[in-house]
Amino acid sequence: MKIALTQFAAEASPEKNLEKQVSMIRKAARGGAKIVCTQELFMSRYFCIELDQKNFDLAEKLDGKTVSAMQKLAAEIDVVIVASIFENSGNEVYHNTAVVIDADGKTLGSYRKMHIPHDPHFEEKYYFTQGDTGYRAWQTKYGKIGVLICWDQWYPEAARLTALQGAEIIFYPTAIGALDGESDAEGEKFRLAWQTVQRGHAVANGAYVAAANRTGAESCKSGSIKFWGGSFCADPYGRVISEASKNSDEILLADIDLSAVKDFRRTWPFFRDRRIDSYGGILRRGAE
Amino acid sequence: MKIALTQFAAEASPEKNLEKQVSMIRKAARGGAKIVCTQELFMSRYFCIELDQKNFDLAEKLDGKTVSAMQKLAAEIDVVIVASIFENSGNEVYHNTAVVIDADGKTLGSYRKMHIPHDPHFEEKYYFTQGDTGYRAWQTKYGKIGVLICWDQWYPEAARLTALQGAEIIFYPTAIGALDGESDAEGEKFRLAWQTVQRGHAVANGAYVAAANRTGAESCKSGSIKFWGGSFCADPYGRVISEASKNSDEILLADIDLSAVKDFRRTWPFFRDRRIDSYGGILRRGAE
Repeated sequence: MKIALTQFAAEASPEKNLEKQVSMIRKAARGGAKIVCTQELFMSRYFCIELDQKNFDLAEKLDGKTVSAMQKLAAEIDVVIVASIFENSGNEVYHNTAVVIDADGKTLGSYRKMHIPHDPHFEEKYYFTQGDTGYRAWQTKYGKIGVLICWDQWYPEAARLTALQGAEIIFYPTAIGALDGESDAEGEKFRLAWQTVQRGHAVANGAYVAAANRTGAESCKSGSIKFWGGSFCADPYGRVISEASKNSDEILLADIDLSAVKDFRRTWPFFRDRRIDSYGGILRRGAE
Repeated sequence: MKIALTQFAAEASPEKNLEKQVSMIRKAARGGAKIVCTQELFMSRYFCIELDQKNFDLAEKLDGKTVSAMQKLAAEIDVVIVASIFENSGNEVYHNTAVVIDADGKTLGSYRKMHIPHDPHFEEKYYFTQGDTGYRAWQTKYGKIGVLICWDQWYPEAARLTALQGAEIIFYPTAIGALDGESDAEGEKFRLAWQTVQRGHAVANGAYVAAANRTGAESCKSGSIKFWGGSFCADPYGRVISEASKNSDEILLADIDLSAVKDFRRTWPFFRDRRIDSYGGILRRGAE
């Protein structure tokens, strides 16, 4: 079974991005992909680079244009689509959301990003309220999958909770890159740490992880982000089995063997020995 | 600041192992190490390879010969020692325990292995009851450290809870290796998964991780384990900064910069954004 991750340099126009995204998903399906995951907020540039009220106009409802287009496409070409959108949740509340659409075009459910960053040029707390869906997994036509989003990548708790829901593949729509003034060596250190922590989630949970990151440079008045692409898929042993370039648009295919998930979890039955009686401190901020 | 991990092929005689361990710690200190961590159960062969009642005779009290020798050594050469022992906890109850001894020779506390494996030739549930100490960290003369043991390595919960206690370095006394019939390729796949998951803990927690694994082959009537050595230290970015060979006794030194821990945690403030309100499922076995 093949999956695909799509990465591209976004343009300013949502229409052009949608067109590109649809075209990439079609190509991925022709290449054999049964599940396709988009990069984070693929309909626009990464507007969280700065604070600007007018960006709220980019948000859409869960039955809006983007989700409708993805539903239609999924049904037409018989693929599961994990689509990242800027969700207008009503009452001027907004979420960073991923919608899981089954191969028949029906939405199985959505996930609202639980961990929201607020760092220089990643000012997401201005735009998104923290998610309220908790961690989920869905039985799609082609496998039981979960989805987490970008900053969630750094949280073992999120991966664990998604795997405990039964996810065999965890998808991560992503927008991460280097800031001005970072040397190439620093950038590479950051990128590899980003990859390493996710490979760790794969091992700890005996699951595939698949991250779709955007590429290209995007600027605002006070600086820019050079998104580092490098979309990748790791198997349950944490091995990178497929990896995209850093700088170009790419449809990344990866071969998935879902029986490897069961095999791994029987060889290394970590879930059996979890000391759930001893994890209470996870629900606290620190050691208090 | 330097730390050291010691790995060696254990002999049958506890006296000889103690002599070797003391000698290696002395050499590590001469090489500049301020904190030294032993491999798991360094006083004996890895007796959990099979079930044999007489192995309970190997267990010692927390004020027994091994801990006393380590206390004396620590004070003499001014190093912190993390010593893994088979603890006789009284009333025929036994634990797999690590004792943290400060550079003045005083025991700061101990950690009883929380996650106990039971797999072919790793039949630890026969010997050890599960730990009751929870996850801890201690301010030693040379840094705030935590200790977890072997099977704990696969559990992000354990690393997280130790880091939340303030640990800047997490030590892992270890005994892991390949079983009969595993191909070299399989063995390497397992070994790299073992390393990857720990490198992931380093990133997720912005901490150093340092695993001391035994080496050498050990047998019982029904099979053998070839311990794969490969003791290593990873920095907060998950980079392996020091790594031992697979097959020989070794004192592995690693350079630690504790200011990197604070720098990392300010650059990537993961602890700030933990969604502690959403982690309740971590305390459950599955999705029920």
